Formats: sequence, structure tokens, C-alpha cells
Amino acid sequence: MSEKEISRAVIKRLPRYFRFLGELRDAGVEKISSRELSQIMHVTASQIRQDLNNFGGFGQQGYGYNVSFLYDEIGKILGLDHEHNLIIIGAGNLGSALAGYGNFANRGFIVKGAFDVSPALVGQYIRNIPILPMSEMPEFIKKNNIDIAVIAIPKTAAVDAAATLVKCGIKAIWNFSHVDLSVPEDVVVESVHLSESLMRLSYNEKNRGLNEGLTEDD
Amino acid sequence: MSEKEISRAVIKRLPRYFRFLGELRDAGVEKISSRELSQIMHVTASQIRQDLNNFGGFGQQGYGYNVSFLYDEIGKILGLDHEHNLIIIGAGNLGSALAGYGNFANRGFIVKGAFDVSPALVGQYIRNIPILPMSEMPEFIKKNNIDIAVIAIPKTAAVDAAATLVKCGIKAIWNFSHVDLSVPEDVVVESVHLSESLMRLSYNEKNRGLNEGLTEDD
Repeated sequence: MSEKEISRAVIKRLPRYFRFLGELRDAGVEKISSRELSQIMHVTASQIRQDLNNFGGFGQQGYGYNVSFLYDEIGKILGLDHEHNLIIIGAGNLGSALAGYGNFANRGFIVKGAFDVSPALVGQYIRNIPILPMSEMPEFIKKNNIDIAVIAIPKTAAVDAAATLVKCGIKAIWNFSHVDLSVPEDVVVESVHLSESLMRLSYNEKNRGLNEGLTEDD
Repeated sequence: MSEKEISRAVIKRLPRYFRFLGELRDAGVEKISSRELSQIMHVTASQIRQDLNNFGGFGQQGYGYNVSFLYDEIGKILGLDHEHNLIIIGAGNLGSALAGYGNFANRGFIVKGAFDVSPALVGQYIRNIPILPMSEMPEFIKKNNIDIAVIAIPKTAAVDAAATLVKCGIKAIWNFSHVDLSVPEDVVVESVHLSESLMRLSYNEKNRGLNEGLTEDD
């Protein structure tokens, strides 16, 4: 089956399946029915069956899903069956937090280097990750087979940084700056706009009671 | 008009309107048509008119939108017309990054204190924000009129922390731990699952070319 027709909504849910299946696997659970999985994940069993059918099903009638197998298969779909080499642009608070986040390494996302314009930061390390000057970035990307760049700098500098990254051949950008990046069609951007998330919380706090019965994933 | 019927998709887009209108206002732009706004924001003009009509319109036929007025009105809808007092649970890398993020204060989100279990951190400061022991949290919440709590601790501790926060009367939780929190119906949670965002980037990188023509907001 082609993955072409898979909706973005399904893709959005896949990492959540991966997380829950990983926890079940770590807890020693070998198989699980869509009904049991639906109770843990607070989604309907038919939603689960429908979502997983996009990828060929994986389940057997009356048996349920093999947890470990399904976990591995979803991992492959998400591209987690091989390592990704990352660089982080910006070694300030947020960049350092992301560089030092052990969970990423566990999933095969290896931060190889961080880059900053500040002379006070260049030459330092975040854990064992070197902070390098921006001028060394193009060479570093080539030498270290970097495929993902994380942008953790103010938005005024982010647009230029993205342009440089694209010129260096980067095809995937994880953007934390508060700006929508314009990139060529063959480059993918995933943005985490923290301020916008906080504003949604503010809205929902103000309108508590209006959204009863909605789960956070609606 | 009641805000009750406003779809979550519209609410999700509001902070983005707020951001673009803020930039236009800062640039001295006084009015803008839905067509011009649509070009900047890469959405259709009819989408913009539809979205803003949810809140009574704000626009005049043939004149366009008053940027500053619309910015203020959306700010009010988002609850940004008054200050929010925050605490951060977890003063590690991520908690420190969030505590030190100046943009939040600009929008009226004031971090009053951070809490941690680590004796090495308690007593220190992030900028001018004190890091306090967890035992002082309930009292601190009351004294400082805290309305939003940020959870930036590992998921093993997050569930207990959320339960304590709810017991202390917190009604809004910004959750960065990699777990879905179960809270009473009158408490709102906005989760930022960084690992899941990174996995979506990985998926989209692997499937580049399949998602041509989609924008990052689809």
C-alpha cells in the first residue's frame, strides 16, 4: 500500500501510538487488543483499527496486536529505525535544554554540535556537545552527515539561519523561533511555537467549562 | 455571540493571527485587507474572513481591518488583557529555558517561582526567579495568585506533581512531560510533546515529496 494517501491527522497520532506501545513493551506486555489500547489511550477502538489499517493492519482478529512488533513497525514508519544527526543553531537556554535532552538520543536523534554567534559561548560544551562558531557550520554539516537542524534563536536571526541551512543541503528543520519559515518544497519544517501554545492555554483557561468533554487531542 | 460554538481549529489559529497582527502593528501598519493579510499568512482570504467572523467580524467592507484594534481584540479573546502568574515545576534545563524566556513576560505571563527537588538547585535563581523546594509550593500558589503551572519534569514525577497542583487549586497546566495527564474536567491542560514533534519531523523528512503543496499548518 502507498503511504501517499495517509492523512496528516493519522501521522500526527503515530508518535502517540509509538509512545504508548513503548511503555507497554517496557512493562512486559506482549499483546494487546484494540479495545484495551483504546482504554489506555482514550481514543475509540475503531479509530485505532482505522489508523493502523493505513499501514496494513498489523492485527489479527481475536488475537490483538503484538506490542513489540507493532512498536517496531511504527518506529520504521516514523523513520526511527536509523540514526539522525542533528545540529542546534543557538546555544542559549532553549538550545542547551534541547541539546541536553537525553530522550532524543534514546530515539536515535544524536546532537553532533551546537552553533552560536556569542564569543562567550563558542568553545564551551553542552554535556559533550561542542559549541562552535556559525562560520564553521557549512563544513560541519557536510563532515558529520547532518540531516536535521534545530533553530533555537530569536526570530530576527532565524530567517537568515534557515536560508544558510537550506544552502548547506539541510532538508529537515525543527523550528523553535517564533516565525514561519519559507523554505523550498523539498525541505520540511516542523515548528514548535511555544508562545502560541501558551496563548491557547490562556484561552482555554478563560473558557473553561465551554470545552467540557473535549480531550486535549481534539 | 456566544464563543461556545467556536471550533478548536479556529482557536488554534488565533495566536497566529495575534502574532502577525502584532508584527504589522509594530511595523506601523494601521489597516490591512483580508487579501493582504492572507498573502502574508499564507492562508486564503475567505478563511480569514470566516475565522474573524466567529468573533463578530471586526472588518469593514472596502476598508479592511484596523490592525491595532484587531490585535487588541484577539488579545482579549486569548485572555492576554490581564497578567497571568506562573510557576514552573522543574528547574532543570527546560524549566530554566522557559523561566528565562523574555517573550512570555512581554505577553503578560509572569513567572513567579520555580520548584525543584534537587538540593543543589533550591536556593538558586533563574534570572530573578527563585528556585524553591516542592514543599513550599502549596503556600506559594496561594500567596502569589498563581493561575498557570508549567510541568517541566520527567514523566515519572509529572503525574504526582499534577495531582498536587490540582489539589492546590491550579486550573491551567502547561505540560512538557511526555505523558498525558488525567485531570478533573475543570482543569485545562496544554501539552507540548517535544519528542512527538521531532518524530513527525522525522516522518516528514522520510516522506518528503509526498507532502508537496501542504503547508505546515495543514
